[in-house]
Amino acid sequence: MQSKLIWNNQMGFSAAGESGHLIIMDADTANGGAGQGLRPMELLLHGLGGCTGMDVVSILKKMQIDLENFSIEINAERAPEHPKRFTNIHLIFKMSGPNINRDKAYHAIELSQTKYCSVAASLNAKISYELIIE
Amino acid sequence: MQSKLIWNNQMGFSAAGESGHLIIMDADTANGGAGQGLRPMELLLHGLGGCTGMDVVSILKKMQIDLENFSIEINAERAPEHPKRFTNIHLIFKMSGPNINRDKAYHAIELSQTKYCSVAASLNAKISYELIIE
Repeated sequence: MQSKLIWNNQMGFSAAGESGHLIIMDADTANGGAGQGLRPMELLLHGLGGCTGMDVVSILKKMQIDLENFSIEINAERAPEHPKRFTNIHLIFKMSGPNINRDKAYHAIELSQTKYCSVAASLNAKISYELIIE
Repeated sequence: MQSKLIWNNQMGFSAAGESGHLIIMDADTANGGAGQGLRPMELLLHGLGGCTGMDVVSILKKMQIDLENFSIEINAERAPEHPKRFTNIHLIFKMSGPNINRDKAYHAIELSQTKYCSVAASLNAKISYELIIE
Protein backbone atom coordinates (compact mmCIF):
# COMPACT_ATOMS: atom_id res chain seq x y z
CA MET A 1 0.00 0.00 0.00
CA GLN A 2 1.33 3.43 -0.90
CA SER A 3 0.92 7.09 -0.04
CA LYS A 4 2.51 10.13 -1.65
CA LEU A 5 2.66 13.49 0.07
CA ILE A 6 3.64 16.86 -1.35
CA TRP A 7 4.53 19.82 0.85
CA ASN A 8 2.44 22.85 -0.10
CA ASN A 9 3.56 25.62 2.25
CA GLN A 10 4.18 26.18 5.98
CA MET A 11 2.57 23.08 7.56
CA GLY A 12 0.32 22.21 4.62
CA PHE A 13 0.62 18.85 2.83
CA SER A 14 -1.45 17.15 0.11
CA ALA A 15 -1.68 13.36 0.26
CA ALA A 16 -2.95 10.81 -2.21
CA GLY A 17 -3.02 7.02 -2.16
CA GLU A 18 -4.56 4.08 -3.93
CA SER A 19 -8.15 5.32 -3.72
CA GLY A 20 -7.19 8.38 -5.77
CA HIS A 21 -8.99 10.70 -3.34
CA LEU A 22 -6.78 13.60 -2.30
CA ILE A 23 -6.70 15.13 1.17
CA ILE A 24 -5.12 18.26 2.55
CA MET A 25 -3.48 18.27 5.98
CA ASP A 26 -2.46 21.29 8.01
CA ALA A 27 -1.56 22.20 11.58
CA ASP A 28 -3.65 24.67 13.52
CA THR A 29 -2.47 28.24 13.99
CA ALA A 30 -1.06 27.46 17.48
CA ASN A 31 1.33 25.01 15.80
CA GLY A 32 2.53 27.10 12.88
CA GLY A 33 -0.18 26.12 10.41
CA ALA A 34 -3.18 27.92 8.95
CA GLY A 35 -5.86 25.38 9.95
CA GLN A 36 -6.57 24.73 6.26
CA GLY A 37 -6.71 20.96 6.46
CA LEU A 38 -7.07 17.80 8.49
CA ARG A 39 -4.72 17.14 11.38
CA PRO A 40 -2.61 13.98 11.07
CA MET A 41 -3.71 12.50 14.42
CA GLU A 42 -7.36 13.05 13.49
CA LEU A 43 -6.86 10.76 10.49
CA LEU A 44 -6.00 7.82 12.74
CA LEU A 45 -9.33 8.16 14.54
CA HIS A 46 -11.29 8.63 11.31
CA GLY A 47 -9.55 5.59 9.85
CA LEU A 48 -10.29 3.49 12.92
CA GLY A 49 -13.97 4.45 12.81
CA GLY A 50 -14.26 3.84 9.09
CA CYS A 51 -12.51 0.48 9.29
CA THR A 52 -14.55 -0.94 12.15
CA GLY A 53 -17.73 0.72 10.81
CA MET A 54 -17.36 -1.04 7.44
CA ASP A 55 -16.73 -4.35 9.22
CA VAL A 56 -19.86 -3.94 11.35
CA VAL A 57 -22.04 -2.99 8.35
CA SER A 58 -20.74 -6.02 6.48
CA ILE A 59 -21.19 -8.47 9.38
CA LEU A 60 -24.71 -7.20 10.19
CA LYS A 61 -25.65 -7.60 6.53
CA LYS A 62 -24.57 -11.27 6.68
CA MET A 63 -26.68 -11.63 9.85
CA GLN A 64 -29.62 -10.15 7.88
CA ILE A 65 -29.87 -7.28 10.37
CA ASP A 66 -31.03 -4.05 8.73
CA LEU A 67 -29.51 -0.72 9.74
CA GLU A 68 -31.43 2.52 9.53
CA ASN A 69 -29.01 4.85 11.28
CA PHE A 70 -25.47 4.10 12.35
CA SER A 71 -22.88 6.43 13.83
CA ILE A 72 -19.64 6.08 15.75
CA GLU A 73 -18.26 8.56 18.28
CA ILE A 74 -14.62 8.27 19.19
CA ASN A 75 -12.91 9.77 22.23
CA ALA A 76 -9.16 9.41 22.47
CA GLU A 77 -6.68 10.21 25.22
CA ARG A 78 -3.08 11.09 24.50
CA ALA A 79 0.05 10.78 26.61
CA PRO A 80 1.00 14.14 28.17
CA GLU A 81 4.66 14.00 27.05
CA HIS A 82 6.15 13.89 23.55
CA PRO A 83 5.51 12.05 21.30
CA LYS A 84 1.99 12.30 22.82
CA ARG A 85 0.77 9.03 21.34
CA PHE A 86 -2.79 7.81 21.69
CA THR A 87 -3.04 5.77 24.88
CA ASN A 88 -6.76 4.98 25.20
CA ILE A 89 -9.36 5.13 22.45
CA HIS A 90 -13.04 4.61 23.24
CA LEU A 91 -15.62 3.91 20.53
CA ILE A 92 -19.35 4.46 21.03
CA PHE A 93 -21.38 2.65 18.38
CA LYS A 94 -24.95 3.96 18.00
CA MET A 95 -27.41 2.20 15.74
CA SER A 96 -31.09 1.91 14.98
CA GLY A 97 -33.07 -0.44 12.77
CA PRO A 98 -36.22 -2.57 12.69
CA ASN A 99 -34.70 -5.92 13.68
CA ILE A 100 -31.51 -5.17 15.64
CA ASN A 101 -30.62 -7.86 18.15
CA ARG A 102 -28.34 -6.43 20.83
CA ASP A 103 -26.22 -9.55 21.36
CA LYS A 104 -25.67 -10.08 17.65
CA ALA A 105 -24.83 -6.43 17.06
CA TYR A 106 -22.36 -6.46 19.97
CA HIS A 107 -20.82 -9.66 18.60
CA ALA A 108 -20.38 -7.97 15.21
CA ILE A 109 -18.41 -5.18 16.91
CA GLU A 110 -16.34 -7.72 18.86
CA LEU A 111 -15.52 -9.66 15.69
CA SER A 112 -14.33 -6.47 14.02
CA GLN A 113 -12.19 -5.40 16.97
CA THR A 114 -10.61 -8.77 17.65
CA LYS A 115 -10.36 -10.33 14.21
CA TYR A 116 -10.95 -8.13 11.19
CA CYS A 117 -10.21 -4.44 11.67
CA SER A 118 -6.82 -3.72 10.08
CA VAL A 119 -6.66 -0.21 11.54
CA ALA A 120 -7.34 -1.36 15.12
CA ALA A 121 -4.57 -3.96 14.77
CA SER A 122 -2.20 -1.34 13.36
CA LEU A 123 -2.61 1.03 16.32
CA ASN A 124 -0.49 1.06 19.45
CA ALA A 125 -3.29 2.02 21.88
CA LYS A 126 -5.82 0.37 24.17
CA ILE A 127 -9.18 0.33 22.39
CA SER A 128 -12.49 -0.04 24.22
CA TYR A 129 -16.08 0.14 22.93
CA GLU A 130 -19.74 0.24 23.82
CA LEU A 131 -22.99 -0.18 21.91
CA ILE A 132 -26.09 2.00 22.19
CA ILE A 133 -29.24 0.84 20.38
CA GLU A 134 -31.46 3.83 19.69
CA MET B 1 -9.33 14.25 20.80
CA GLN B 2 -12.59 13.30 19.13
CA SER B 3 -13.98 11.96 15.88
CA LYS B 4 -17.59 11.51 14.82
CA LEU B 5 -18.61 9.25 11.96
CA ILE B 6 -21.95 8.94 10.22
CA TRP B 7 -22.84 5.98 8.04
CA ASN B 8 -24.02 7.17 4.62
CA ASN B 9 -24.83 4.00 2.67
CA GLN B 10 -23.25 0.62 1.88
CA MET B 11 -19.62 1.12 2.98
CA GLY B 12 -19.67 4.91 2.89
CA PHE B 13 -18.94 6.97 6.03
CA SER B 14 -18.45 10.69 6.65
CA ALA B 15 -16.03 11.66 9.40
CA ALA B 16 -15.34 14.96 11.12
CA GLY B 17 -13.06 15.90 13.99
CA GLU B 18 -11.55 18.91 15.70
CA SER B 19 -10.19 20.53 12.54
CA GLY B 20 -13.75 20.78 11.15
CA HIS B 21 -12.65 19.37 7.79
CA LEU B 22 -14.92 16.56 6.66
CA ILE B 23 -13.74 13.44 4.83
CA ILE B 24 -15.62 10.66 3.09
CA MET B 25 -14.46 7.06 3.38
CA ASP B 26 -15.56 4.14 1.24
CA ALA B 27 -14.43 0.63 0.36
CA ASP B 28 -13.55 -0.29 -3.19
CA THR B 29 -15.99 -2.24 -5.33
CA ALA B 30 -14.23 -5.55 -4.59
CA ASN B 31 -15.11 -5.03 -0.93
CA GLY B 32 -18.74 -4.00 -1.22
CA GLY B 33 -18.17 -0.27 -1.62
CA ALA B 34 -18.44 2.16 -4.50
CA GLY B 35 -14.89 3.57 -4.34
CA GLN B 36 -16.35 6.99 -3.54
CA GLY B 37 -13.96 7.89 -0.74
CA LEU B 38 -10.71 7.32 1.07
CA ARG B 39 -9.86 3.88 2.42
CA PRO B 40 -9.37 3.70 6.18
CA MET B 41 -5.89 2.12 6.02
CA GLU B 42 -4.79 4.81 3.58
CA LEU B 43 -5.52 7.42 6.25
CA LEU B 44 -2.92 5.92 8.59
CA LEU B 45 -0.22 6.37 5.97
CA HIS B 46 -1.36 9.90 5.08
CA GLY B 47 -1.44 10.77 8.78
CA LEU B 48 2.05 9.35 9.32
CA GLY B 49 3.44 11.34 6.40
CA GLY B 50 1.71 14.55 7.45
CA CYS B 51 2.84 14.23 11.06
CA THR B 52 6.49 13.55 10.35
CA GLY B 53 6.46 16.01 7.43
CA MET B 54 5.26 18.85 9.68
CA ASP B 55 7.92 17.94 12.26
CA VAL B 56 10.66 18.00 9.64
CA VAL B 57 9.51 21.36 8.19
CA SER B 58 9.43 22.81 11.69
CA ILE B 59 12.85 21.45 12.74
CA LEU B 60 14.52 22.54 9.47
CA LYS B 61 13.07 26.02 9.96
CA LYS B 62 14.70 26.19 13.39
CA MET B 63 17.97 25.05 11.78
CA GLN B 64 17.54 27.93 9.26
CA ILE B 65 17.52 25.43 6.40
CA ASP B 66 15.28 26.55 3.54
CA LEU B 67 13.12 24.05 1.67
CA GLU B 68 12.15 24.53 -1.95
CA ASN B 69 10.51 21.18 -2.64
CA PHE B 70 9.67 18.47 -0.16
CA SER B 71 7.77 15.24 -0.70
CA ILE B 72 7.36 11.96 1.14
CA GLU B 73 6.69 8.58 -0.48
CA ILE B 74 5.42 5.83 1.77
CA ASN B 75 5.44 2.11 1.02
CA ALA B 76 3.74 -0.17 3.50
CA GLU B 77 3.56 -3.93 3.83
CA ARG B 78 0.64 -5.69 5.46
CA ALA B 79 0.37 -9.07 7.14
CA PRO B 80 -1.18 -11.66 4.79
CA GLU B 81 -3.75 -12.91 7.32
CA HIS B 82 -6.63 -11.04 9.02
CA PRO B 83 -6.54 -8.45 10.50
CA LYS B 84 -3.85 -7.65 7.90
CA ARG B 85 -2.16 -4.98 9.99
CA PHE B 86 0.71 -2.87 8.73
CA THR B 87 3.95 -4.68 9.52
CA ASN B 88 6.63 -2.55 7.82
CA ILE B 89 6.32 1.04 6.70
CA HIS B 90 9.12 2.70 4.73
CA LEU B 91 9.29 6.46 4.26
CA ILE B 92 11.32 8.11 1.50
CA PHE B 93 11.90 11.80 2.21
CA LYS B 94 12.85 13.85 -0.86
CA MET B 95 13.87 17.46 -0.52
CA SER B 96 15.60 20.26 -2.35
CA GLY B 97 16.72 23.72 -1.28
CA PRO B 98 19.65 26.15 -1.54
CA ASN B 99 21.36 25.33 1.78
CA ILE B 100 20.36 21.79 2.73
CA ASN B 101 22.93 19.99 4.84
CA ARG B 102 22.47 16.24 4.54
CA ASP B 103 23.45 15.36 8.13
CA LYS B 104 21.22 18.05 9.62
CA ALA B 105 18.27 17.10 7.43
CA TYR B 106 18.68 13.43 8.34
CA HIS B 107 18.89 14.40 12.01
CA ALA B 108 15.61 16.33 11.66
CA ILE B 109 13.94 13.17 10.34
CA GLU B 110 15.45 11.10 13.15
CA LEU B 111 14.23 13.57 15.79
CA SER B 112 10.71 13.36 14.37
CA GLN B 113 10.68 9.58 14.23
CA THR B 114 12.19 8.96 17.64
CA LYS B 115 10.91 11.88 19.70
CA TYR B 116 8.14 14.01 18.26
CA CYS B 117 5.87 12.27 15.75
CA SER B 118 2.64 11.34 17.55
CA VAL B 119 1.39 9.25 14.65
CA ALA B 120 4.58 7.17 14.40
CA ALA B 121 4.38 6.48 18.15
CA SER B 122 0.70 5.53 17.83
CA LEU B 123 1.33 2.89 15.15
CA ASN B 124 2.04 -0.77 15.78
CA ALA B 125 4.45 -1.27 12.87
CA LYS B 126 8.18 -1.16 12.17
CA ILE B 127 8.98 2.18 10.54
CA SER B 128 12.12 2.79 8.45
CA TYR B 129 13.18 5.82 6.44
CA GLU B 130 15.67 7.24 3.97
CA LEU B 131 16.53 10.71 2.72
CA ILE B 132 17.14 11.76 -0.88
CA ILE B 133 18.46 15.28 -1.53
CA GLU B 134 17.53 16.34 -5.02
